Amino acid sequence: MSMQALLANPGSTERTRVRRIPELAVKDRSTLHQVLDAGLLGHLALADETGQPYALPVAYARDGESLLMHGSTASRLFRLCAAGTPVCFTVTLLDGLVLARSAFESSMNYRSVMVLGHCNVLHGKSKELGLRLISDHLMPERWAEIRKPSAQELKSTAVLELPLDECSLKINAGGPDDGAQDAALPVWAGRIPLVRQWGEPVAAEDLKPEYARIPDYVHRWKA
Amino acid sequence: MSMQALLANPGSTERTRVRRIPELAVKDRSTLHQVLDAGLLGHLALADETGQPYALPVAYARDGESLLMHGSTASRLFRLCAAGTPVCFTVTLLDGLVLARSAFESSMNYRSVMVLGHCNVLHGKSKELGLRLISDHLMPERWAEIRKPSAQELKSTAVLELPLDECSLKINAGGPDDGAQDAALPVWAGRIPLVRQWGEPVAAEDLKPEYARIPDYVHRWKA
Repeated sequence: MSMQALLANPGSTERTRVRRIPELAVKDRSTLHQVLDAGLLGHLALADETGQPYALPVAYARDGESLLMHGSTASRLFRLCAAGTPVCFTVTLLDGLVLARSAFESSMNYRSVMVLGHCNVLHGKSKELGLRLISDHLMPERWAEIRKPSAQELKSTAVLELPLDECSLKINAGGPDDGAQDAALPVWAGRIPLVRQWGEPVAAEDLKPEYARIPDYVHRWKA
Repeated sequence: MSMQALLANPGSTERTRVRRIPELAVKDRSTLHQVLDAGLLGHLALADETGQPYALPVAYARDGESLLMHGSTASRLFRLCAAGTPVCFTVTLLDGLVLARSAFESSMNYRSVMVLGHCNVLHGKSKELGLRLISDHLMPERWAEIRKPSAQELKSTAVLELPLDECSLKINAGGPDDGAQDAALPVWAGRIPLVRQWGEPVAAEDLKPEYARIPDYVHRWKA
Protein backbone atom coordinates (compact mmCIF):
# COMPACT_ATOMS: atom_id res chain seq x y z
CA MET A 1 0.00 0.00 0.00
CA SER A 2 1.30 3.39 -0.95
CA MET A 3 1.03 6.47 1.21
CA GLN A 4 1.51 9.90 -0.25
CA ALA A 5 1.33 12.61 2.33
CA LEU A 6 1.56 16.30 1.77
CA LEU A 7 1.83 18.80 4.51
CA ALA A 8 -0.05 22.03 4.05
CA ASN A 9 1.37 24.23 6.75
CA PRO A 10 -0.44 27.12 8.32
CA GLY A 11 2.12 29.29 6.51
CA SER A 12 1.94 27.47 3.18
CA THR A 13 1.18 29.42 0.04
CA GLU A 14 0.30 28.78 -3.58
CA ARG A 15 4.04 28.47 -4.27
CA THR A 16 4.49 25.64 -1.79
CA ARG A 17 1.20 23.84 -2.37
CA VAL A 18 2.19 20.41 -3.65
CA ARG A 19 0.52 19.95 -7.00
CA ARG A 20 1.76 16.48 -7.87
CA ILE A 21 -0.19 13.55 -6.39
CA PRO A 22 -1.99 15.57 -3.68
CA GLU A 23 -4.07 12.61 -2.42
CA LEU A 24 -3.45 13.22 1.21
CA ALA A 25 -2.87 16.50 2.94
CA VAL A 26 -1.44 16.22 6.43
CA LYS A 27 -1.59 19.41 8.42
CA ASP A 28 0.98 18.31 10.92
CA ARG A 29 3.73 20.64 11.98
CA SER A 30 5.41 17.99 14.14
CA THR A 31 6.04 15.74 11.12
CA LEU A 32 7.74 18.67 9.39
CA HIS A 33 9.96 19.12 12.45
CA GLN A 34 10.70 15.38 12.63
CA VAL A 35 11.91 15.23 9.03
CA LEU A 36 14.12 18.29 9.49
CA ASP A 37 15.51 16.87 12.74
CA ALA A 38 16.31 13.53 11.07
CA GLY A 39 18.38 15.12 8.27
CA LEU A 40 22.00 16.24 8.50
CA LEU A 41 22.45 18.00 5.18
CA GLY A 42 20.19 20.06 2.96
CA HIS A 43 20.53 21.77 -0.42
CA LEU A 44 20.35 25.56 -0.50
CA ALA A 45 19.19 26.92 -3.85
CA LEU A 46 19.73 30.50 -4.93
CA ALA A 47 20.32 32.36 -8.17
CA ASP A 48 23.28 34.68 -8.70
CA GLU A 49 23.19 38.13 -10.34
CA THR A 50 23.15 36.53 -13.80
CA GLY A 51 20.13 34.37 -12.96
CA GLN A 52 22.21 31.18 -12.79
CA PRO A 53 20.79 28.97 -10.03
CA TYR A 54 22.99 26.92 -7.68
CA ALA A 55 22.19 24.11 -5.25
CA LEU A 56 24.75 23.96 -2.44
CA PRO A 57 25.04 21.16 0.12
CA VAL A 58 24.77 22.79 3.54
CA ALA A 59 24.72 21.47 7.10
CA TYR A 60 21.90 22.85 9.19
CA ALA A 61 19.90 22.60 12.38
CA ARG A 62 16.32 23.43 13.26
CA ASP A 63 15.75 25.95 16.03
CA GLY A 64 12.05 26.02 16.75
CA GLU A 65 10.40 27.51 13.66
CA SER A 66 13.65 28.41 11.88
CA LEU A 67 16.52 26.67 10.16
CA LEU A 68 20.10 27.65 10.95
CA MET A 69 23.01 27.29 8.50
CA HIS A 70 26.62 28.31 8.64
CA GLY A 71 29.16 29.04 5.97
CA SER A 72 32.20 31.09 5.14
CA THR A 73 31.83 34.86 4.97
CA ALA A 74 34.20 34.62 2.00
CA SER A 75 31.69 32.60 -0.04
CA ARG A 76 30.17 34.61 -2.86
CA LEU A 77 26.92 32.64 -2.77
CA PHE A 78 26.63 32.77 1.01
CA ARG A 79 27.08 36.54 0.83
CA LEU A 80 24.18 36.72 -1.62
CA CYS A 81 22.04 34.81 0.89
CA ALA A 82 23.16 37.14 3.66
CA ALA A 83 22.09 40.06 1.47
CA GLY A 84 18.56 38.67 1.32
CA THR A 85 18.30 37.02 -2.10
CA PRO A 86 15.34 34.60 -2.28
CA VAL A 87 16.33 31.03 -1.42
CA CYS A 88 14.91 27.54 -1.27
CA PHE A 89 16.24 25.05 1.24
CA THR A 90 15.39 21.41 0.60
CA VAL A 91 16.04 18.46 2.88
CA THR A 92 15.38 15.04 1.36
CA LEU A 93 15.60 11.75 3.24
CA LEU A 94 15.71 8.79 0.88
CA ASP A 95 13.96 5.89 2.60
CA GLY A 96 14.07 3.22 -0.08
CA LEU A 97 13.06 1.97 -3.48
CA VAL A 98 9.56 0.96 -4.52
CA LEU A 99 9.59 -1.95 -6.95
CA ALA A 100 6.29 -1.92 -8.80
CA ARG A 101 5.38 -4.31 -11.63
CA SER A 102 5.54 -1.47 -14.16
CA ALA A 103 8.34 0.98 -14.89
CA PHE A 104 5.85 3.83 -14.55
CA GLU A 105 4.77 2.98 -10.99
CA SER A 106 8.30 2.17 -9.80
CA SER A 107 9.51 4.91 -7.52
CA MET A 108 11.34 5.89 -4.37
CA ASN A 109 10.20 6.29 -0.80
CA TYR A 110 11.32 9.61 0.59
CA ARG A 111 10.49 12.49 2.90
CA SER A 112 11.28 15.93 1.52
CA VAL A 113 10.86 19.37 3.06
CA MET A 114 11.13 22.49 0.91
CA VAL A 115 11.40 25.91 2.56
CA LEU A 116 11.13 29.17 0.60
CA GLY A 117 12.13 32.52 1.96
CA HIS A 118 14.92 34.93 2.77
CA CYS A 119 17.75 34.42 5.25
CA ASN A 120 18.53 36.64 8.19
CA VAL A 121 22.11 37.06 9.36
CA LEU A 122 22.74 36.31 13.03
CA HIS A 123 25.16 38.36 15.09
CA GLY A 124 26.71 38.34 18.57
CA LYS A 125 25.22 35.92 21.09
CA SER A 126 22.58 34.68 18.60
CA LYS A 127 25.35 33.78 16.17
CA GLU A 128 27.32 31.89 18.82
CA LEU A 129 24.20 30.07 19.94
CA GLY A 130 23.43 29.25 16.30
CA LEU A 131 26.83 27.58 15.87
CA ARG A 132 26.24 25.61 19.02
CA LEU A 133 22.80 24.45 17.87
CA ILE A 134 24.23 23.29 14.53
CA SER A 135 26.92 21.35 16.42
CA ASP A 136 24.31 19.91 18.81
CA HIS A 137 22.22 18.75 15.85
CA LEU A 138 25.06 17.09 13.93
CA MET A 139 27.14 15.90 16.89
CA PRO A 140 24.95 15.81 20.01
CA GLU A 141 26.81 16.36 23.30
CA ARG A 142 30.14 17.13 21.62
CA TRP A 143 30.11 20.93 22.05
CA ALA A 144 30.97 20.81 25.78
CA GLU A 145 34.22 18.94 25.03
CA ILE A 146 35.66 20.92 22.14
CA ARG A 147 37.32 24.29 21.78
CA LYS A 148 34.76 27.01 21.10
CA PRO A 149 35.17 29.39 18.15
CA SER A 150 37.76 32.15 18.55
CA ALA A 151 36.98 35.76 17.68
CA GLN A 152 38.78 35.30 14.36
CA GLU A 153 36.90 32.08 13.59
CA LEU A 154 33.60 33.76 14.43
CA LYS A 155 34.50 36.62 12.11
CA SER A 156 35.09 34.29 9.17
CA THR A 157 31.84 32.37 9.74
CA ALA A 158 28.39 33.53 8.72
CA VAL A 159 25.35 32.09 10.47
CA LEU A 160 22.07 32.40 8.58
CA GLU A 161 18.55 31.87 9.81
CA LEU A 162 15.71 30.85 7.48
CA PRO A 163 12.21 31.03 9.00
CA LEU A 164 9.93 28.03 8.43
CA ASP A 165 7.18 30.36 7.26
CA GLU A 166 6.58 29.07 3.74
CA CYS A 167 7.23 25.38 3.31
CA SER A 168 5.96 22.06 2.06
CA LEU A 169 6.50 18.48 3.07
CA LYS A 170 6.13 15.59 0.68
CA ILE A 171 6.25 12.00 1.87
CA ASN A 172 6.14 8.85 -0.20
CA ALA A 173 5.98 5.73 1.94
CA GLY A 174 4.82 2.14 1.63
CA GLY A 175 4.83 -0.35 -1.20
CA PRO A 176 3.89 -0.19 -4.88
CA ASP A 177 0.44 0.82 -6.03
CA ASP A 178 -0.09 -1.28 -9.12
CA GLY A 179 -3.48 -1.59 -10.79
CA ALA A 180 -5.22 -4.98 -10.82
CA GLN A 181 -3.94 -5.84 -14.30
CA ASP A 182 -0.29 -5.12 -13.42
CA ALA A 183 -0.64 -6.87 -10.05
CA ALA A 184 -1.26 -10.12 -11.92
CA LEU A 185 2.11 -9.95 -13.71
CA PRO A 186 4.55 -12.74 -12.76
CA VAL A 187 7.11 -10.57 -10.98
CA TRP A 188 8.11 -9.85 -7.38
CA ALA A 189 6.93 -6.47 -6.10
CA GLY A 190 7.56 -4.62 -2.88
CA ARG A 191 9.93 -2.14 -1.37
CA ILE A 192 13.59 -2.17 -0.35
CA PRO A 193 14.26 0.08 2.64
CA LEU A 194 17.38 2.20 2.66
CA VAL A 195 18.92 2.85 6.05
CA ARG A 196 21.62 5.24 7.17
CA GLN A 197 24.09 3.74 9.58
CA TRP A 198 27.09 5.00 11.47
CA GLY A 199 30.19 2.88 10.88
CA GLU A 200 33.00 2.22 13.34
CA PRO A 201 34.74 5.41 14.54
CA VAL A 202 38.23 5.94 13.10
CA ALA A 203 40.66 7.72 15.45
CA ALA A 204 42.65 10.71 14.16
CA GLU A 205 46.21 9.77 13.21
CA ASP A 206 47.57 12.22 15.77
CA LEU A 207 45.27 11.11 18.60
CA LYS A 208 47.23 10.65 21.83
CA PRO A 209 46.81 7.18 23.40
CA GLU A 210 45.50 8.70 26.65
CA TYR A 211 42.48 10.11 24.77
CA ALA A 212 41.76 6.97 22.74
CA ARG A 213 38.54 6.08 24.54
CA ILE A 214 35.60 6.73 22.21
CA PRO A 215 33.16 9.11 23.93
CA ASP A 216 29.91 7.64 25.22
CA TYR A 217 27.87 10.08 23.13
CA VAL A 218 29.30 8.61 19.93
CA HIS A 219 27.95 5.24 21.04
CA ARG A 220 24.62 6.93 21.75
CA TRP A 221 24.50 8.29 18.18
CA LYS A 222 24.79 4.75 16.88
CA ALA A 223 22.09 3.41 19.17
CA MET B 1 44.73 13.38 7.83
CA SER B 2 42.33 15.45 5.84
CA MET B 3 42.00 15.28 2.09
CA GLN B 4 40.27 18.00 0.16
CA ALA B 5 40.04 17.28 -3.50
CA LEU B 6 38.61 19.48 -6.17
CA LEU B 7 38.08 18.38 -9.66
CA ALA B 8 38.81 20.91 -12.33
CA ASN B 9 37.25 19.37 -15.39
CA PRO B 10 38.32 20.03 -18.93
CA GLY B 11 34.97 21.77 -19.30
CA SER B 12 35.08 23.65 -16.01
CA THR B 13 34.68 27.41 -16.00
CA GLU B 14 35.10 30.34 -13.64
CA ARG B 15 31.58 29.63 -12.37
CA THR B 16 32.42 26.07 -11.36
CA ARG B 17 35.94 26.65 -10.10
CA VAL B 18 35.85 25.73 -6.43
CA ARG B 19 37.01 28.74 -4.50
CA ARG B 20 36.73 27.39 -0.96
CA ILE B 21 39.73 25.32 0.26
CA PRO B 22 41.26 24.63 -3.17
CA GLU B 23 44.32 22.79 -1.79
CA LEU B 24 44.16 19.93 -4.17
CA ALA B 25 42.97 19.95 -7.73
CA VAL B 26 42.28 16.52 -9.17
CA LYS B 27 41.75 16.48 -12.88
CA ASP B 28 40.08 13.13 -12.94
CA ARG B 29 36.96 12.59 -14.96
CA SER B 30 36.54 9.01 -13.71
CA THR B 31 36.12 10.19 -10.10
CA LEU B 32 33.36 12.53 -11.25
CA HIS B 33 31.65 9.57 -12.95
CA GLN B 34 32.12 7.37 -9.86
CA VAL B 35 30.42 9.87 -7.56
CA LEU B 36 27.50 10.33 -9.95
CA ASP B 37 27.17 6.56 -10.35
CA ALA B 38 27.15 6.05 -6.57
CA GLY B 39 24.27 8.50 -5.99
CA LEU B 40 20.58 7.75 -6.42
CA LEU B 41 19.07 11.20 -5.96
CA GLY B 42 20.19 14.71 -6.80
CA HIS B 43 18.78 18.18 -6.29
CA LEU B 44 17.80 20.16 -9.36
CA ALA B 45 17.92 23.93 -8.82
CA LEU B 46 16.14 26.39 -11.08
CA ALA B 47 14.49 29.77 -10.71
CA ASP B 48 10.93 30.46 -11.82
CA GLU B 49 9.69 33.50 -13.76
CA THR B 50 9.63 35.57 -10.56
CA GLY B 51 13.26 34.74 -9.75
CA GLN B 52 12.30 32.42 -6.89
CA PRO B 53 14.75 29.50 -6.83
CA TYR B 54 13.71 25.91 -6.08
CA ALA B 55 15.72 22.79 -5.25
CA LEU B 56 13.84 19.66 -6.25
CA PRO B 57 14.83 16.11 -5.32
CA VAL B 58 15.16 14.18 -8.59
CA ALA B 59 16.21 10.63 -9.48
CA TYR B 60 18.78 10.46 -12.23
CA ALA B 61 21.25 8.33 -14.12
CA ARG B 62 24.51 9.09 -15.86
CA ASP B 63 24.73 8.25 -19.55
CA GLY B 64 28.32 8.82 -20.61
CA GLU B 65 28.90 12.57 -20.40
CA SER B 66 25.28 13.48 -19.62
CA LEU B 67 22.82 13.16 -16.78
CA LEU B 68 19.30 11.92 -17.41
CA MET B 69 16.27 12.85 -15.30
CA HIS B 70 12.59 12.15 -15.61
CA GLY B 71 9.54 13.92 -14.31
CA SER B 72 5.94 14.68 -15.04
CA THR B 73 5.11 16.76 -18.10
CA ALA B 74 2.45 18.37 -15.86
CA SER B 75 5.08 19.80 -13.49
CA ARG B 76 5.45 23.56 -13.84
CA LEU B 77 9.12 23.51 -12.82
CA PHE B 78 9.96 20.56 -15.06
CA ARG B 79 8.36 22.42 -17.97
CA LEU B 80 10.63 25.40 -17.25
CA CYS B 81 13.63 23.04 -17.43
CA ALA B 82 12.35 21.59 -20.67
CA ALA B 83 12.10 25.14 -22.04
CA GLY B 84 15.82 25.65 -21.39
CA THR B 85 15.98 27.70 -18.20
CA PRO B 86 19.46 27.57 -16.61
CA VAL B 87 19.76 24.82 -14.00
CA CYS B 88 22.16 23.43 -11.47
CA PHE B 89 22.11 19.74 -10.59
CA THR B 90 23.90 18.75 -7.40
CA VAL B 91 24.57 15.23 -6.13
CA THR B 92 25.96 15.01 -2.60
CA LEU B 93 27.06 11.80 -0.92
CA LEU B 94 27.46 12.25 2.82
CA ASP B 95 30.27 9.95 3.95
CA GLY B 96 30.51 10.80 7.63
CA LEU B 97 31.29 13.28 10.37
CA VAL B 98 34.70 14.69 11.18
CA LEU B 99 35.15 15.24 14.91
CA ALA B 100 37.94 17.76 15.34
CA ARG B 101 39.04 19.18 18.72
CA SER B 102 37.60 22.59 17.81
CA ALA B 103 34.13 23.55 16.68
CA PHE B 104 35.65 25.43 13.75
CA GLU B 105 37.50 22.41 12.29
CA SER B 106 34.65 19.98 12.90
CA SER B 107 33.05 19.08 9.58
CA MET B 108 31.57 16.44 7.34
CA ASN B 109 33.10 14.07 4.88
CA TYR B 110 31.29 14.21 1.58
CA ARG B 111 31.56 13.99 -2.18
CA SER B 112 29.56 16.55 -4.10
CA VAL B 113 29.16 17.11 -7.84
CA MET B 114 27.60 20.31 -9.15
CA VAL B 115 26.60 20.56 -12.81
CA LEU B 116 25.53 23.83 -14.44
CA GLY B 117 23.80 24.07 -17.78
CA HIS B 118 20.60 23.72 -19.73
CA CYS B 119 18.52 20.59 -20.19
CA ASN B 120 17.60 19.03 -23.52
CA VAL B 121 14.30 17.20 -23.90
CA LEU B 122 14.57 13.65 -25.21
CA HIS B 123 12.02 12.22 -27.63
CA GLY B 124 11.14 8.91 -29.26
CA LYS B 125 13.70 6.13 -28.94
CA SER B 126 16.13 8.35 -26.98
CA LYS B 127 13.41 9.05 -24.44
CA GLU B 128 12.55 5.36 -24.02
CA LEU B 129 16.25 4.51 -23.69
CA GLY B 130 16.59 7.31 -21.12
CA LEU B 131 13.84 5.81 -18.97
CA ARG B 132 15.51 2.45 -19.19
CA LEU B 133 18.89 3.88 -18.17
CA ILE B 134 17.35 5.59 -15.14
CA SER B 135 15.72 2.30 -14.14
CA ASP B 136 19.00 0.43 -14.73
CA HIS B 137 20.82 2.91 -12.49
CA LEU B 138 18.35 2.80 -9.60
CA MET B 139 17.24 -0.82 -9.91
CA PRO B 140 19.84 -2.75 -11.92
CA GLU B 141 18.47 -5.73 -13.88
CA ARG B 142 14.84 -4.99 -13.02
CA TRP B 143 13.80 -3.47 -16.36
CA ALA B 144 13.66 -6.84 -18.17
CA GLU B 145 11.04 -8.14 -15.72
CA ILE B 146 8.61 -5.24 -15.50
CA ARG B 147 5.97 -3.81 -17.79
CA LYS B 148 7.44 -1.14 -20.07
CA PRO B 149 5.84 2.31 -20.32
CA SER B 150 2.64 2.54 -22.37
CA ALA B 151 2.14 5.26 -24.98
CA GLN B 152 0.04 7.20 -22.46
CA GLU B 153 2.64 6.82 -19.71
CA LEU B 154 5.38 7.96 -22.10
CA LYS B 155 3.28 10.97 -23.01
CA SER B 156 2.94 12.06 -19.40
CA THR B 157 6.65 11.64 -18.68
CA ALA B 158 9.37 14.11 -19.63
CA VAL B 159 12.95 12.89 -19.93
CA LEU B 160 15.61 15.58 -19.68
CA GLU B 161 19.29 15.37 -20.50
CA LEU B 162 21.87 17.65 -18.87
CA PRO B 163 25.36 17.56 -20.43
CA LEU B 164 28.30 17.25 -18.03
CA ASP B 165 29.99 20.18 -19.75
CA GLU B 166 30.36 22.59 -16.84
CA CYS B 167 30.82 20.95 -13.48
CA SER B 168 32.79 20.72 -10.30
CA LEU B 169 33.54 17.99 -7.82
CA LYS B 170 34.36 18.65 -4.20
CA ILE B 171 35.53 15.88 -1.91
CA ASN B 172 36.24 16.06 1.79
CA ALA B 173 37.68 12.82 3.14
CA GLY B 174 39.80 11.65 6.03
CA GLY B 175 40.08 12.77 9.63
CA PRO B 176 40.30 16.14 11.37
CA ASP B 177 43.04 18.62 10.59
CA ASP B 178 43.66 20.29 13.95
CA GLY B 179 46.66 22.52 14.52
CA ALA B 180 49.32 21.41 17.02
CA GLN B 181 47.81 23.43 19.86
CA ASP B 182 44.31 21.97 19.40
CA ALA B 183 45.74 18.47 18.90
CA ALA B 184 47.00 18.58 22.49
CA LEU B 185 43.49 19.10 23.91
CA PRO B 186 42.21 16.23 26.08
CA VAL B 187 39.43 15.04 23.76
CA TRP B 188 38.87 12.17 21.36
CA ALA B 189 39.15 13.14 17.69
CA GLY B 190 38.53 11.22 14.51
CA ARG B 191 35.81 10.49 12.04
CA ILE B 192 32.56 8.53 12.12
CA PRO B 193 31.74 7.00 8.73
CA LEU B 194 28.18 7.05 7.51
CA VAL B 195 27.09 4.14 5.37
CA ARG B 196 24.03 3.56 3.24
CA GLN B 197 22.58 0.13 3.55
CA TRP B 198 19.69 -1.72 1.98
CA GLY B 199 17.34 -3.22 4.54
CA GLU B 200 15.29 -6.39 4.20
CA PRO B 201 12.89 -6.35 1.22
CA VAL B 202 9.23 -5.97 2.16
CA ALA B 203 6.80 -7.75 -0.19
CA ALA B 204 3.81 -5.85 -1.59
CA GLU B 205 0.59 -6.63 0.29
CA ASP B 206 -1.01 -7.93 -2.90
CA LEU B 207 1.97 -10.09 -3.93
CA LYS B 208 0.82 -13.53 -5.03
CA PRO B 209 2.53 -16.39 -3.13
CA GLU B 210 3.82 -17.91 -6.39
CA TYR B 211 5.92 -14.78 -7.00
CA ALA B 212 7.20 -14.41 -3.44
CA ARG B 213 10.80 -15.34 -4.22
CA ILE B 214 12.96 -12.22 -3.95
CA PRO B 215 14.81 -11.72 -7.25
CA ASP B 216 18.53 -12.53 -7.30
CA TYR B 217 19.35 -9.01 -8.49
CA VAL B 218 17.92 -7.54 -5.26
CA HIS B 219 20.41 -9.68 -3.34
CA ARG B 220 23.13 -8.44 -5.68
CA TRP B 221 22.26 -4.79 -4.85
CA LYS B 222 22.83 -5.57 -1.18
CA ALA B 223 26.15 -7.29 -1.78
